[in-house]
Amino acid sequence: MPDTKRFIDLLNFIRSETDRHLQKLDFPEEPAFLYDPIRYVLKGKGKGKRLRPLLVHLSGRGFDADPEDLMHAGLAVELLHNFTLVHDDIMDKDDIRHGKPTVHMKYGQAAAILVGDSIFTLGQLNIEQVQTNTIQATHAYNKASLAVCEGQAYDLQFEGDTTVSLDQYLVMISRKTGALLSLCAELGGILGNQSHEVCHKLHTFGLNLGRAFQVQDDILEIFSDEENLGKSLESDVAADKQTVLTISARKHDGWDEIKNLTGDISAKRERMQSFFIETGVEARARQMSSNYITKAMDSLSVFSGEHKRAMEQFTHFVLNRTH
Amino acid sequence: MPDTKRFIDLLNFIRSETDRHLQKLDFPEEPAFLYDPIRYVLKGKGKGKRLRPLLVHLSGRGFDADPEDLMHAGLAVELLHNFTLVHDDIMDKDDIRHGKPTVHMKYGQAAAILVGDSIFTLGQLNIEQVQTNTIQATHAYNKASLAVCEGQAYDLQFEGDTTVSLDQYLVMISRKTGALLSLCAELGGILGNQSHEVCHKLHTFGLNLGRAFQVQDDILEIFSDEENLGKSLESDVAADKQTVLTISARKHDGWDEIKNLTGDISAKRERMQSFFIETGVEARARQMSSNYITKAMDSLSVFSGEHKRAMEQFTHFVLNRTH
Repeated sequence: MPDTKRFIDLLNFIRSETDRHLQKLDFPEEPAFLYDPIRYVLKGKGKGKRLRPLLVHLSGRGFDADPEDLMHAGLAVELLHNFTLVHDDIMDKDDIRHGKPTVHMKYGQAAAILVGDSIFTLGQLNIEQVQTNTIQATHAYNKASLAVCEGQAYDLQFEGDTTVSLDQYLVMISRKTGALLSLCAELGGILGNQSHEVCHKLHTFGLNLGRAFQVQDDILEIFSDEENLGKSLESDVAADKQTVLTISARKHDGWDEIKNLTGDISAKRERMQSFFIETGVEARARQMSSNYITKAMDSLSVFSGEHKRAMEQFTHFVLNRTH
Repeated sequence: MPDTKRFIDLLNFIRSETDRHLQKLDFPEEPAFLYDPIRYVLKGKGKGKRLRPLLVHLSGRGFDADPEDLMHAGLAVELLHNFTLVHDDIMDKDDIRHGKPTVHMKYGQAAAILVGDSIFTLGQLNIEQVQTNTIQATHAYNKASLAVCEGQAYDLQFEGDTTVSLDQYLVMISRKTGALLSLCAELGGILGNQSHEVCHKLHTFGLNLGRAFQVQDDILEIFSDEENLGKSLESDVAADKQTVLTISARKHDGWDEIKNLTGDISAKRERMQSFFIETGVEARARQMSSNYITKAMDSLSVFSGEHKRAMEQFTHFVLNRTH
C-alpha cells in the first residue's frame, strides 16, 4: 500500500529529526554526576519510539504549524515523558527499561532524582521557545505535567486496594496516560493557531487514545506472547496493581484463588488468561478499548484530507503495536 | 530606629501576604497520596522565612513592578525552593526539616518524589502568570532551576572527595545557593521592565549574596551556639561534605587527625573550632564572606533612595541571622 508506505516514511522522518535534535542537545561535561546519566537517558542506544513527538508533529502539520515550533514542542513532550519514566522507575522499583538498567540502578537513586528534575527543566526550556501562542502552550504543558503526577499518585495509592472501582481506575489512566497524549495532540492545535474549540477536540482525541492505549496495555500484559510485555507481570501482580482486568475480575467467583496462586509464573498467567476469557472479562475490556478508539476517531473531524488520514493511521499504529 | 522598624514591618507585610496566598492555593482532596503531603509542606505550621519571595518583592518594588506580578513570581520562587528542599532531603537522607519530619520520612519516598515534582510544576504554573515580560521571566526561572540541580549534583559528587578545590567549591555554591537568590533579585528587574544591564547587576547581587550566605552557613555550622544549626554537624562531617572550612583546613598539619576523631560530637566540634581559629582558616572564611557582601552591596547601585536602603537592610537581615 503506497499510502501506508508514505505514512511510515513520514513517521521515520519525524523520528529521525527528533533524534537528531536530541543528539544535538549540548550538555557540559560537568557535573558528571548529573550529565553522564542524562546522556545515558537521552543519547544512549535503545531509544524510545518517540510516539509523543510524532503526535505533536502529525497534529500540528494538520494546521500548518511552524516546523520549528513543532520541533521544540516535540522535544518538550519527549523530555517530559523521559522525566516521568526516570522518576516512575524509582517509585516502582523497576530495574530495566528498554533493555537497559534504569537510571537509579546504574547511577544510584540520588542521581536519578536529580536527572528527572533536570530533564523536566530541559523540557520547560524547550516549550518556552515556541513562538506561536507561547503562553498557551506553556500553560497546557504545565497542566498536563501536574495531571501526570496526579495519575502516578493514584496508581501508587490504588496499589493493593481491592476496593478501587472501574471509575476510579479510569480517572487514574486518564491522568497517567491520557494527559500527556492529550497535550501532544492539543499542542498541534495551539501551535497551528486553532480555536479553543478545535484544541479541546484535539485534547479529547488524545485523552481517548490514551485510555484505549492503557486498557490495551493491561490486556497485552496478560495476553501478549511477547516476552518483553509479559516481563513485568510478576511484579505487577505481586504489587496488587489495579488493571482493567483485575478490577473487573473481582466480582467473579474464583478470582481470589487465582490471584493468590504462587509458584510458576507462566502457569499462573495461563490460568489468568482462561479465567478472563471464560468470565467475559477480556471481551469487555477489548470492547472498552474499542469504544475509546471510536471516540478518539470521532474527534478527528477537525482534520481533513491527508492529515485526517495520517492521524487515523497514527491511531492504528499506536494501538496495533502487538497482538 | 524607626527606619529599621519600618523595614521590619515591610518584611512582615510581604511575608504574611505570601503566606496568605500560599494558604489560598486550592488543592483537591484526591489523590490524597499526593495532596496530603503537599498540604503538609505548603500549609503546615513551622513555616519557612520566605527569604526568596521577600527578595523578589523588595527588588521589584525598587522598579515599581506590578504587585500582582511580584506575588506570582514570589510564590513561584518559594515553590521552587520547597521543591528542592523536598528532593534534597531524600538525597541527603535528612529526617527533620523546620522541626518536623521530612516528607519522605512521614509519607514515604515515592510520595516525596512526586510531591517535589508537583510543587515544581505549581511553581511553573505561577511564573507563567506574570503579565510583564512573561517569557523572559519564565526563561530566567528555568535557567535557575537547572543551575540549582547542577549545584546539588556537584554537592553530591564532591562528597568524600578530598581533592575538591576552593574554586570547585565556589562553582558548587554559586549554583546551589547563588542561582536561586540571583533569580529572585533578577525577577524584580524583569518584572520592573529594566534593561538587560540592570537585570545582570541584580543577578550579580543575588549571586554574591548567595555565596556570602553559604560561606557563612559553613562557618555557623561549626561556630554557632544554636542547637539547631549545629544539629547536622555529625551527618555532614560523617559524609565528608566539603565546606569552605574543611577545604581550607586540608593543607594544614593535624587536620586529618581531627577529622577522623570519633566519639563525643561536642568535643570534636570544640577541637575543630580551635583548629580553624589557630590556623587562620576561620578568619579567611569570614574575610571571604565579607568580600562577597561588599561585591553584593556594590551591585545595589541600580537602586536609589529608600529602595536601595531596603535592599541593604535585607542583605544585613539575611546575613546577620545568628552569630
